[in-house]
Amino acid sequence: MATIAYLGPPGTFSEAAAIAYGGSHAQYLPLTSMPAVVTAIETGIASVGVLPIENALEGSVTTTLDLLIHETDLQICGETVIPIRLYLVAQAGLSLPEIKVLYAHPQSLGQSRRFVERCLPGVETFASLSNSAAPTEALADKRPAAAISTFQAAKLTGANILAHDIQDRANNVTRFIALGRERCSPTGDDKTSFCFGFHEDRAGTLVGALEELARAGINMTKLESRPSKEVLGQYIFWVDINGHQHDAHVIQALEKIAAKTDLLKVCGSYPRYVKAEGNL
Amino acid sequence: MATIAYLGPPGTFSEAAAIAYGGSHAQYLPLTSMPAVVTAIETGIASVGVLPIENALEGSVTTTLDLLIHETDLQICGETVIPIRLYLVAQAGLSLPEIKVLYAHPQSLGQSRRFVERCLPGVETFASLSNSAAPTEALADKRPAAAISTFQAAKLTGANILAHDIQDRANNVTRFIALGRERCSPTGDDKTSFCFGFHEDRAGTLVGALEELARAGINMTKLESRPSKEVLGQYIFWVDINGHQHDAHVIQALEKIAAKTDLLKVCGSYPRYVKAEGNL
Repeated sequence: MATIAYLGPPGTFSEAAAIAYGGSHAQYLPLTSMPAVVTAIETGIASVGVLPIENALEGSVTTTLDLLIHETDLQICGETVIPIRLYLVAQAGLSLPEIKVLYAHPQSLGQSRRFVERCLPGVETFASLSNSAAPTEALADKRPAAAISTFQAAKLTGANILAHDIQDRANNVTRFIALGRERCSPTGDDKTSFCFGFHEDRAGTLVGALEELARAGINMTKLESRPSKEVLGQYIFWVDINGHQHDAHVIQALEKIAAKTDLLKVCGSYPRYVKAEGNL
Repeated sequence: MATIAYLGPPGTFSEAAAIAYGGSHAQYLPLTSMPAVVTAIETGIASVGVLPIENALEGSVTTTLDLLIHETDLQICGETVIPIRLYLVAQAGLSLPEIKVLYAHPQSLGQSRRFVERCLPGVETFASLSNSAAPTEALADKRPAAAISTFQAAKLTGANILAHDIQDRANNVTRFIALGRERCSPTGDDKTSFCFGFHEDRAGTLVGALEELARAGINMTKLESRPSKEVLGQYIFWVDINGHQHDAHVIQALEKIAAKTDLLKVCGSYPRYVKAEGNL
């Protein structure tokens, strides 16, 4: 049976992504950090790990990109997209006007700013480490406390749901990647992720690399810059393209990019996520 | 006297950046959020505001980029670079082995991971909303508590410094921008920040825009992609270049980029930061 590692605790969107990827016949392993997920796969504790890579409002999850760029040779072997639905939950019997304290993961608080300003003006907010820790902390507080939570975390903690879909934007989603130890074979509808960088910074270096993709007719679906971590202003670029690293035109374009850059690392080819019927 | 707004509370790196930019003849206004800094400048409460835009290890501060892209027409009028030095502080009389609890801003905790793993193994960590809130919370805790703090926040709170420069990387710095209501005149050594986007996504659109910079011999010092906030996978690109928006070759390149894109917004031209003698 496959073991799928994810950033816990249970009840987070990461757990939802792990289950969406692994289905009902896998076992799930919540870990306490994203680097721990990588190490669990590398050392065989888990067969696969799931990490968030991009949110439609917040952008890239830089911890994940930096792990793939700098710290591991694990390969991306899949992707999935999870709707971000946030709930206001509270201690039993507590109604909206009585709430004095709000626990929330800072990102979820940021994504529910309008609701909080309108419906909880003047509430005192406390940062929680996850959407699942927030309801736990609210239930343990002696003051009249609420939390921003996932649906699953509300169920797990027994917190009372006061409001649903409190996020500012209805259609917010997060894309997660699955990481494994082996390369995936082509399926006919794949994406490839890679990164590249330059020791020297001059006009045209990035453009020269990207032109090779354009010339080969390869569609770039994501371009992100990350600090090299050496010098402020020196970057490594992350690119997602349509196509598999075994496709002839992709091989050729990557070879040309490698010739123009000082670093090129392919982080995996994997089946493109296609929205399932009834999803989102 | 100029009033300079920043993301408070006092004692944060943002305060250090505000003072580095404004000097000793300005007055300083700590506010509770980055959008509040923008609103304070727009409405005349402050003449200038200072916001972090990029850290050498963590990359771009996406809240700042998104404010400039989506929410304000304020212009960048300056930049400054601040060294990120972190301190371990604690309640008076407490020594390292006695510490059971650690308060830290999550980003500072991430940047001091090696120190914490080695010198505070098994410590229970709590997320604080700022490097200045962390020592305040540690001093108020009834357990043996420490915090990751700035030097200035240690001084302000009276917390006892146990260790200095606990950050993993010695040379970490954060770049801050100053925002104002007016455009800056050329000084002869300026940078320009702008952003652009496309309604449609196809191979070559981004490359076509960047080629105009390369053709004009304009050096791009930063390229960042941000989500359009409309659809997952649609981006707005942020670019810093050397040169002023009033320079003939910059005007020409920006006109050509405008013709190739669906959105182009110049966010300011400003004197390039040059490391002062004695600065990191």
